Amino acid sequence: MGQVAWKGLFLSLFDYKTEKYVIAKNKKVGILYRVVQLSILAYLVGWVFVVKKGYQDTDTSLQSSVITKLKGVAFTNTSELGERLWDVADYVIPPQGESVFFVMTNLIVTPNQRQATCPESASIPDALCHEDGDCPAGQAVVAGNGVKTGRCVKDQNSARGTCEILAWCPVEKRSKPKKPLLASAENFTVYIKNSIRFPKFQFSKMNVLATNNESYLKTCRYSTEHPYCPIFLLGNIVQWAGSDFQEMALEGGVIGIQIEWNCDLDKAPSECNPHYSFSRLDNKFSEKAISSGYNFRFAKYYRDAEGVDYRTLIKAYGIRFDVMVNGKAGKFNIIPTIINIGSGLALMGAGAFFCDLVLLYLIKKSNFYRGKKYEEVKSSSRKSLSSPTLNGNQSPEQLGGL
Amino acid sequence: MGQVAWKGLFLSLFDYKTEKYVIAKNKKVGILYRVVQLSILAYLVGWVFVVKKGYQDTDTSLQSSVITKLKGVAFTNTSELGERLWDVADYVIPPQGESVFFVMTNLIVTPNQRQATCPESASIPDALCHEDGDCPAGQAVVAGNGVKTGRCVKDQNSARGTCEILAWCPVEKRSKPKKPLLASAENFTVYIKNSIRFPKFQFSKMNVLATNNESYLKTCRYSTEHPYCPIFLLGNIVQWAGSDFQEMALEGGVIGIQIEWNCDLDKAPSECNPHYSFSRLDNKFSEKAISSGYNFRFAKYYRDAEGVDYRTLIKAYGIRFDVMVNGKAGKFNIIPTIINIGSGLALMGAGAFFCDLVLLYLIKKSNFYRGKKYEEVKSSSRKSLSSPTLNGNQSPEQLGGL
Amino acid sequence: MGQVAWKGLFLSLFDYKTEKYVIAKNKKVGILYRVVQLSILAYLVGWVFVVKKGYQDTDTSLQSSVITKLKGVAFTNTSELGERLWDVADYVIPPQGESVFFVMTNLIVTPNQRQATCPESASIPDALCHEDGDCPAGQAVVAGNGVKTGRCVKDQNSARGTCEILAWCPVEKRSKPKKPLLASAENFTVYIKNSIRFPKFQFSKMNVLATNNESYLKTCRYSTEHPYCPIFLLGNIVQWAGSDFQEMALEGGVIGIQIEWNCDLDKAPSECNPHYSFSRLDNKFSEKAISSGYNFRFAKYYRDAEGVDYRTLIKAYGIRFDVMVNGKAGKFNIIPTIINIGSGLALMGAGAFFCDLVLLYLIKKSNFYRGKKYEEVKSSSRKSLSSPTLNGNQSPEQLGGL
Repeated sequence: MGQVAWKGLFLSLFDYKTEKYVIAKNKKVGILYRVVQLSILAYLVGWVFVVKKGYQDTDTSLQSSVITKLKGVAFTNTSELGERLWDVADYVIPPQGESVFFVMTNLIVTPNQRQATCPESASIPDALCHEDGDCPAGQAVVAGNGVKTGRCVKDQNSARGTCEILAWCPVEKRSKPKKPLLASAENFTVYIKNSIRFPKFQFSKMNVLATNNESYLKTCRYSTEHPYCPIFLLGNIVQWAGSDFQEMALEGGVIGIQIEWNCDLDKAPSECNPHYSFSRLDNKFSEKAISSGYNFRFAKYYRDAEGVDYRTLIKAYGIRFDVMVNGKAGKFNIIPTIINIGSGLALMGAGAFFCDLVLLYLIKKSNFYRGKKYEEVKSSSRKSLSSPTLNGNQSPEQLGGL
Repeated sequence: MGQVAWKGLFLSLFDYKTEKYVIAKNKKVGILYRVVQLSILAYLVGWVFVVKKGYQDTDTSLQSSVITKLKGVAFTNTSELGERLWDVADYVIPPQGESVFFVMTNLIVTPNQRQATCPESASIPDALCHEDGDCPAGQAVVAGNGVKTGRCVKDQNSARGTCEILAWCPVEKRSKPKKPLLASAENFTVYIKNSIRFPKFQFSKMNVLATNNESYLKTCRYSTEHPYCPIFLLGNIVQWAGSDFQEMALEGGVIGIQIEWNCDLDKAPSECNPHYSFSRLDNKFSEKAISSGYNFRFAKYYRDAEGVDYRTLIKAYGIRFDVMVNGKAGKFNIIPTIINIGSGLALMGAGAFFCDLVLLYLIKKSNFYRGKKYEEVKSSSRKSLSSPTLNGNQSPEQLGGL
Repeated sequence: MGQVAWKGLFLSLFDYKTEKYVIAKNKKVGILYRVVQLSILAYLVGWVFVVKKGYQDTDTSLQSSVITKLKGVAFTNTSELGERLWDVADYVIPPQGESVFFVMTNLIVTPNQRQATCPESASIPDALCHEDGDCPAGQAVVAGNGVKTGRCVKDQNSARGTCEILAWCPVEKRSKPKKPLLASAENFTVYIKNSIRFPKFQFSKMNVLATNNESYLKTCRYSTEHPYCPIFLLGNIVQWAGSDFQEMALEGGVIGIQIEWNCDLDKAPSECNPHYSFSRLDNKFSEKAISSGYNFRFAKYYRDAEGVDYRTLIKAYGIRFDVMVNGKAGKFNIIPTIINIGSGLALMGAGAFFCDLVLLYLIKKSNFYRGKKYEEVKSSSRKSLSSPTLNGNQSPEQLGGL
C-alpha cells in the first residue's frame, strides 16, 4: 500500500461510527420504552445514588478499640456467706475491660473443697448404685465430679446409694437458685469507650463527647438526647434488648451491644455518629433441656498452713455482654461514580432489548417493523450489492432476530 | 417555534427508536454468535442464578453468640503431685465458656516460688559464667528469669557456673515432658451452643435440637446422623482436624472449629443447617526451632502466715479451641434479580462485538460485510444527502470500525 | 406452515445480525470517541486488571491463628512493695498468649482489704457529709466503693467528713502515679506466631522463618531486613505506632498490631509476605475528663488461718496490644476475567451514548447527522415501504432520540 492509503487509514480512525436507528412511529412501544427508561433512571438515581451512595468509595475495614469499665457495688446478706459487699473486682470476669465482659449476678458457692473421697451427688444417674460392684474402681463418673473408688455409699436403711468418688470434696450441691443474689446489679453502670478509625480516609472518631466539663461524664447517662455519653445502666441495656433483668439475672444470658458507625464523609465529621442497638443473643425460648441461660464454674485456690491445697468452687450465673462494632465510611470518588453511571446505561440496553421483543413479535404490525429493522444482505447476487433488500413482507425466518 | 412544532416535538418523544440491523447470511459467524449467546445464557442461568443465587438479596452480617461448656474429669498419680483429680475448674482456661477456650493437657509445676536469690538455669546461654565479673549486678538475664546479683555460683570443682539472680526462686526446670499428664482429656466432651440471627431477615436459629426430651442432650454425641447434637468428644475433634490427640496433648496446639450457616431462606427454615468443619490452625510442621506447639505460664499466688507472698508457677501445655462462626442468608428480592439479568444482557453486547470482529476482519468476505455495516455519510456533497454510500468495495480505511 | 418454511426458519436462526452503523466523517467527535474508548481501555487494563487484579478469583475468608509469648523481667524497689522481681506470669494478663494481651506497666496496690467498715474516700462527691443524716444506711455510694452504714466519720475539729461504708477496707487511695513502675517493660520482647490458611486455595503460610538454625529465632529482632523474625521489642512497637513508651506506660493505652497478608498466588509462595503496621487505637488526645488511658482493677484473694477472706486489690495501668490479622489471596480464574472484560465493553456503550449526544445535539451539523442516524418508517403509506425516508432536514421532533 502506498503512503496515501496509510494516511487514509489513519484518518478513518477518527471517523465517528454511530448505530443507525429506525424510528418506529408506534406510540405504544414508544411509551413502554420511555417507562422502562424512566424506571432505570429512577433506579439509578434513587437506589444506586441516593440510597446506596454509588458515587462514593467505601471503606469497611474499620479499626476499632473498645474499653469497658463497670461501676457499682452490691450488698448481700445470706446465711451462707454472711454480710458481704461485692465490688467490680469481685463480679466482673475477666477484669481487663475488653469488649466481652461478664457480670456475675448469681452464684452457688462450694467452699473448702479438698482432694479426698466422698459420695457423688445423687442427681447424677451414672453414680447411683446398689452394691460395690456397681462402682468399678478407677472409672470416671459420666458427667460427674470424680473417679469411682469401688465403694457404694448407702444411707442407713436405704437400698440405693451413690458411688464413692475421689474428687474435690464435698461435691457441689445441684440446686437451682430461686432469686438472683446480686439483683441490684440492675443499677450498675458500664462505660463503653469506643475509638474508631477508617484507615483509607484517615478519619478517627470516638463515642465520647469531647468536653472539658469533667462532671458531664461523671453524671450523664446514655439516651437519645445524650448520644455522646456512653454510660449505660445495665438494667436499661437488658430492657432495650427486650428482656427482663431479674429473670435474666437468675439463670444468665448473653446480650449483644452493637455499635454501628455509618459515616458519609462528604458531610461534616459531626454527622458521623454511632448508632447503638441491643439484642439478646442467646435464644432463651428455643431450648429447655440442659444449660439454658449462661453459667460457668471457676475456683479460687488457697493453701493451708500445712501446704495442702484447697479451693472454693463457684458456679457463676450472670450476663455476658458482647460489644460488637462495625461500620462503613463513604467519600465521593470519580471511579465508582463513572462505573455506576456506565452500568446504569448498559442496563438501558436490556430495556431496549425487551421493547424490541414487543415491537417485533407482539404487536400487530410487527412483521412490517421486522423488515425495517433487519436489512438482509447477500454477497452472492450482484443485486444485493447495489441496493439493500428492504421490504415489509419478511418471512418468519426473521424469528432468529432475537 | 409555534405551538404545532412543540406538539410535534412532544409526540416524537413517544416514537420508538430501534437499532437497524444488517442480516449477514453467513452461517459460520451466525453459529459462532449463537454459541456465544448460549454460553452467556448458560453462565447467567447456571452460574449467576443457580450456583450464586443471583436472584437473592443476601445478609452476611451474622449476629452470633457462642457458649461452650466442658465436661469430664481426669485422675493423675505422679511422684510430684501425688494422687490428684482434675475437673473443669482446674483445666479450662479461661473459665467463662467463650468461643475460645484452652484445655490443659500437660503441665510443669514449680511450687513454692518466693522472691529470693538463686542460681539461674544452666540452659540459658546468657547466664553462664566463669567468675563474678561475668555477672554484672542489676543486669537482666537475656531470655532468663531474673536480674543478676553480681555473683557467679559454681559447683565444687567446676570451672563454669551460672550467675546468681534475684527472681522467683527456685527457677523452673527446663525439661520437656515425655508423655501428656492429662492423656484422658481425649474423652472430655464439649457442648458448643451457638445462636445466630440474620438481622435483615429477622431470622434466628440455634444449633441445638428443640426437644423436650431432657435425656437426649445428656447422652447424644455429634455425628452426621445427629447434626443437632452439638456435644463433641475432644478426641474426635482433634481426629477430624487430621491430628493425633496424644501427640498434640504433649506439646499443645490450636484447633479451629468452623461453624458455617449457609441459609436459603426461600426454603423452609429446617433447611438452614449448621455445617461443622475442623482444622489445625497452628502449622505444626513448618517450624522446629522455638516454641513449637502451644504453651504458656501462669501462677497461683498464696500468702503465708507471715504475710509473705509465694506462688506456684505452672507452665501449661494444651489445646486451644477457636470456635469461628460465619454465615450467609439469601432471600428472593426483585432488585438483584433485575440487575443480574440486565448485566447478563449487557454482556451479550460484548459477545456481539467479538463476532463483529470475526465478521468484519477475519473471514473471506469481510470487506463486503464491512461495506454493508458501515454507511458513510458526508454533509459536504449534495449526493450523499439523498442516498447513502453503499458499496462492497470499502477500502482498508474501515479498519477504524472497531 | 410447510416443512420448507420450518427449515427456512431454522436456517435463519444461524444468520448473523449485526448493527448497522453510520460513519460520520466528523473528526472532532471521532477523536472524542477514541479518547473515551482509550480512557475506558486504560481503566479496564490499568485499574481493573493491573491494580485490582480483576482476572483473579479472590478468597478473603482467612483462617488465622495467633499465639503470642512475652519474654523479659523487671526489677523494682519501692517503699511499698520492697525489692521485687516481675516476670511474665506477673505482668501479662490474661496469661494464655492469645491475640489480645495486656502488659502491666504501672500499678496501685491496696493490700489486705477485708470486709469491714471504714470511711469512704474523700474524693467521691456522694460520700461527703456533715452529719449522720447525710449518709442514709443501706444506700450505695454513687461511683463509690461500698454501702453507707448511716454514720458520718469526721476528723477532729473538722466540720466535713465522709460517710462510713461497708466495703473492702481500707479503700483504695486515689492517687495518679507520677512515673511508671515497670518502665523497663520497654525492653520486653513479644513473639507473635501467626499461621494463616486460605481454604479456597489450600494455601498455608506462617510469619516465622522455616529454618533449622535454632539460634536465629533466639537472637533476631523484627526489622524490614528480617521480615520473618516476628520478635518485637515493646518499645519499638509503641514507637512505630507514633507514641512514647514512657508516657503510655504511665496511664496506659491500646496499640493495634495489624498483620496483612496480600497474596498473589499466581506468583511463587515466597512472594506472599506478611505486612505489619502499628497504630494507636485509643484516641489519646480527644478526651481529658475521665478514664483517659487504660486501666482496670483486679484482686488476688487469700484466706487467713481463721478462714476469713482478704484480698489485695490491684489497679493495673498498662498497654493492651490487639493483634489483628486480615488478608486476601487471588488466583487466576476464567470467570471473573470474562465478566470484567464484558463489563468493560458494556461500559463502551455508555461512551458511545455520550458521543452520540455531542454528535446529534451539540455540534453545528447535528441536524444533518440526526437525519442520517434515525430512519423514519411509517407503515401507513405505501411509499415508505419501498424506500426509507432519508433526508438531512429532520425537524426538532427528533430530540426524543435520546
